[in-house]
Amino acid sequence: MSMVCIQRRERFSAAHQLYNPNWSEEQNEAVFGRCANKHYHGHNFSLIVTVKGRPNPETGFVMNLFDLKQLIRVHIIDWVDHRNLNTDVPFMQGKMASTEVLAIEFWKILKPLIQVDGPGLYCIRLEETENNFVEYYGEEA
Amino acid sequence: MSMVCIQRRERFSAAHQLYNPNWSEEQNEAVFGRCANKHYHGHNFSLIVTVKGRPNPETGFVMNLFDLKQLIRVHIIDWVDHRNLNTDVPFMQGKMASTEVLAIEFWKILKPLIQVDGPGLYCIRLEETENNFVEYYGEEA
Amino acid sequence: MSMVCIQRRERFSAAHQLYNPNWSEEQNEAVFGRCANKHYHGHNFSLIVTVKGRPNPETGFVMNLFDLKQLIRVHIIDWVDHRNLNTDVPFMQGKMASTEVLAIEFWKILKPLIQVDGPGLYCIRLEETENNFVEYYGEEA
Amino acid sequence: MSMVCIQRRERFSAAHQLYNPNWSEEQNEAVFGRCANKHYHGHNFSLIVTVKGRPNPETGFVMNLFDLKQLIRVHIIDWVDHRNLNTDVPFMQGKMASTEVLAIEFWKILKPLIQVDGPGLYCIRLEETENNFVEYYGEEA
Amino acid sequence: MSMVCIQRRERFSAAHQLYNPNWSEEQNEAVFGRCANKHYHGHNFSLIVTVKGRPNPETGFVMNLFDLKQLIRVHIIDWVDHRNLNTDVPFMQGKMASTEVLAIEFWKILKPLIQVDGPGLYCIRLEETENNFVEYYGEEA
Amino acid sequence: MSMVCIQRRERFSAAHQLYNPNWSEEQNEAVFGRCANKHYHGHNFSLIVTVKGRPNPETGFVMNLFDLKQLIRVHIIDWVDHRNLNTDVPFMQGKMASTEVLAIEFWKILKPLIQVDGPGLYCIRLEETENNFVEYYGEEA
Repeated sequence: MSMVCIQRRERFSAAHQLYNPNWSEEQNEAVFGRCANKHYHGHNFSLIVTVKGRPNPETGFVMNLFDLKQLIRVHIIDWVDHRNLNTDVPFMQGKMASTEVLAIEFWKILKPLIQVDGPGLYCIRLEETENNFVEYYGEEA
Repeated sequence: MSMVCIQRRERFSAAHQLYNPNWSEEQNEAVFGRCANKHYHGHNFSLIVTVKGRPNPETGFVMNLFDLKQLIRVHIIDWVDHRNLNTDVPFMQGKMASTEVLAIEFWKILKPLIQVDGPGLYCIRLEETENNFVEYYGEEA
Repeated sequence: MSMVCIQRRERFSAAHQLYNPNWSEEQNEAVFGRCANKHYHGHNFSLIVTVKGRPNPETGFVMNLFDLKQLIRVHIIDWVDHRNLNTDVPFMQGKMASTEVLAIEFWKILKPLIQVDGPGLYCIRLEETENNFVEYYGEEA
Repeated sequence: MSMVCIQRRERFSAAHQLYNPNWSEEQNEAVFGRCANKHYHGHNFSLIVTVKGRPNPETGFVMNLFDLKQLIRVHIIDWVDHRNLNTDVPFMQGKMASTEVLAIEFWKILKPLIQVDGPGLYCIRLEETENNFVEYYGEEA
Repeated sequence: MSMVCIQRRERFSAAHQLYNPNWSEEQNEAVFGRCANKHYHGHNFSLIVTVKGRPNPETGFVMNLFDLKQLIRVHIIDWVDHRNLNTDVPFMQGKMASTEVLAIEFWKILKPLIQVDGPGLYCIRLEETENNFVEYYGEEA
Repeated sequence: MSMVCIQRRERFSAAHQLYNPNWSEEQNEAVFGRCANKHYHGHNFSLIVTVKGRPNPETGFVMNLFDLKQLIRVHIIDWVDHRNLNTDVPFMQGKMASTEVLAIEFWKILKPLIQVDGPGLYCIRLEETENNFVEYYGEEA
C-alpha cells in the first residue's frame, strides 16, 4: 500500500511572553510590542500532528489515532495545557517561547515516539490564533 | 421599522488565573484545578456584542458597525488584549477573573456608550475556548 | 409535545453597495466609507432560518429540513446568489442594501410560506462576514 | 449578582436512521428520503448545553464548567458516542431518532441533574451537520 | 503560466464500523474499541480534492470548479452520502472502512477522470471529525 | 536552526465577475454561468501567506508576524478590500479575475518584499468560499 498522511488535532491553553532576557526592556518592547508584557498574555493553541506511513492491511490504519492522541496528550498536552510556557515547561527552559520554537520542541519530543511503516512524524502544525500559524517538517525539510 | 439585533465580534488574547485570595492554596486547587496555576494560563477570547434597535431608514443601519467596532476596541479590547486579566486590567481589580465576571464588566462599560433608536446593548457573549461560552443580557434579564 | 426551534443554514455570494441616492457622494463616503464604493464590493453571506413549532410524533420533525431547504433556495437563494443586491434583486429595489434590511425582506418572503404546528418562522440570522451578524425576529419582537 | 448563561459544547459521533415502523417502506422513503436508509447513516453531532444562573461571588462561576462537562459526558455522551441511536440507546427506544427528539430527551436527562442559583438548564442545542441545528428550551418555552 | 493547486470541498454523512472479519470479536474490540460497534456509528465527512495544473489564459481556470464539483458529486458523494460504508458502497466491498482506505479509493476513482494542463489530481483530504484527518497524494508520493 | 513555515491570514471583501471580453455574452455565460453576471457578485476572501525560513535565535521568529501583517495589508488588502477586482485594482487590469490569477498576482507583489533567512515567500493560499480554495507555490513549483 501507498503512503498516507494521518493528522490528529489536540488543543491547549497557555500563557506566554516574548522576552529576550539579554535585551533591555525597551529593546524587548520595540521588537515584541505587547507580546513582551511582563505579566504575560495567553492563547488557545491548536496542535495538529501529521504522521506519514503505509496503512496496515489488517486494520486499514497507518497508526491507531487513539494511540496517537494518547502520545500527544501524555508527552505534550499534559506539560503545556493551563501552564505558563516561560516558567512551567521543562523543555522550554532558556528558550524563546515563540510558536516557531514550540513547534520545533514538540517535534523533538514526538519524533522518536512514533513508529509506523514509513517515515513517521511528518509535520507539526501549531495555530496560535485564528490568523497566526506555524508548520515544522523536521531538520531535513 | 421593527427591531433588529446587530452583532459585532472582536477578539483578544489574555492571560488569567482563577484564584480566590481568601482561600488556601489547597482550596483553590480543589475548586479551580489547573485554572488556579499561579503562573497563569491564557486564552484567545472571542467577544460578540449584540445591539438591538430600529434601523434608520436613511442608512439601513441600527448603528454603523464601524462605530460599534471602534467603541469595543477603545473601551474593551485595548484594555484586555495581550494583558493579564488579574493584574493589568483596572476594571477587574479585586474581582474573580472568570468569563462570567468579565462579561458583566464588559456590559457595564458598553451599556452607557451605545445609543440607538431602541434598547441598545442587548447581549455580551464571550467565548473562552471552542467549547466554553458565556452570555449576559443585563440585570433585568 | 413541546416547542422546538429548528435551523437551516444556506449560503450565497453577492455584490452590494451602501449608498443613499438622496445624499451627495461626499455624504455617502462620510457615512458608509469604503462600503459606498460605486463599483461595489461583495460578501459570502450565511443565512440561518429558525422555525419554531411542535415536532410531529409520526416523523419527529417540526418540519422536514429538506422542505425548508427547498423553500429557502427557491424563494431567497436563487434570487440573491451571484447577484448584485442593489441592481438585480426585485424585492430590494429602492431599499438600502444593508444586512438589516436584507434580513427584514427575507422575513417578509418566508413568513407566509412556512406552516408548522406552532408559530413558524422565528428568526432570520444573516452573517455578512466572520465578524458582522444581524438577527431579525419579526415586527412584534 | 445578575443572571448569566454559561454554555458547554460536547461532541459525539453516532449512526441513525429516520424510519417510522408503522409505515410502509415506500412511505418512509417518500417522507425521509435517503435518511431512511435501512443500513443507517451517521453524523458528528455537536451538543451545546446552556445553564442559567447567578455567578457565585466566591468563585465567579454560575457552575464549574468542569462539573458541567462531567455531567454531560457521564449522562449523555457515554450513552450515544459511537452508538447507533436507533438500536443502542435505552432512552431512545421506541422513539423517532430525529434531532428534535434527541434534544428533548437530552433535556429530560439533564434538567434534574443541574442545580444552580437560578433556573438551571436553559437550552439544549444540537448541531447535526454544519447546516442543520435544533434548539430546545423546555416545555414551558 | 505556472502551476496552481485548486481545491474543492464536498461533504457527506455516512455510517461505518471498523471491524476485521478475520478476527474474533474480542480482538476487534481490543484494537478498534468503540469504533467496532456492530450496530455502526457515523460521521459528517469533509472531502477536499486538490487538482494541480496551469491556468488556462482564456478562463483564468485550472479547471472549472463547477465541473470538479459535479465530478466529485456524481462519482463519490452520490455513492457514499447517507450510506453505510461497510454494506452499501460497491468500491469498499471487502475493504476496511478506515479513513485511510476511503481516501485511497476516492483517489482511484477520481484520478482518471480529471484532465487538466498539468498533473491533475494531486491530493485527497478527508476529515472525519474536527480532530481526525487523512491526506493521500497517490502511489508515488 | 531548521526551516519553519509561518503563516498569516488576512481577509478582504470584494466584488468580481468572470468574463472574457474577447468572447460573446453567450460564450461567457456558457463557461462561467452565474459568475459572468454583468452587475458582479462578491466574496469574503481569506488570504493565507506562508513564509519559509530559519528562526532567528534572538527572537525565536522566522519573521515578526506583525511586520508580515503590515506588508500584506499595505501591499494587498488596502488595494482589494471593498473594491471591485475587475475595475478598481491596478494590478488586475486586463487579467481574468479568477482566484488562480489573483493568487499569482499576490505572489508577484509579495515575493520581493519578504526577506528572511531562507527562501522567504513559500505559498499564497486564497479561500473564495468555504468550499473553493487555491494555492500557488511560485513558478518553480
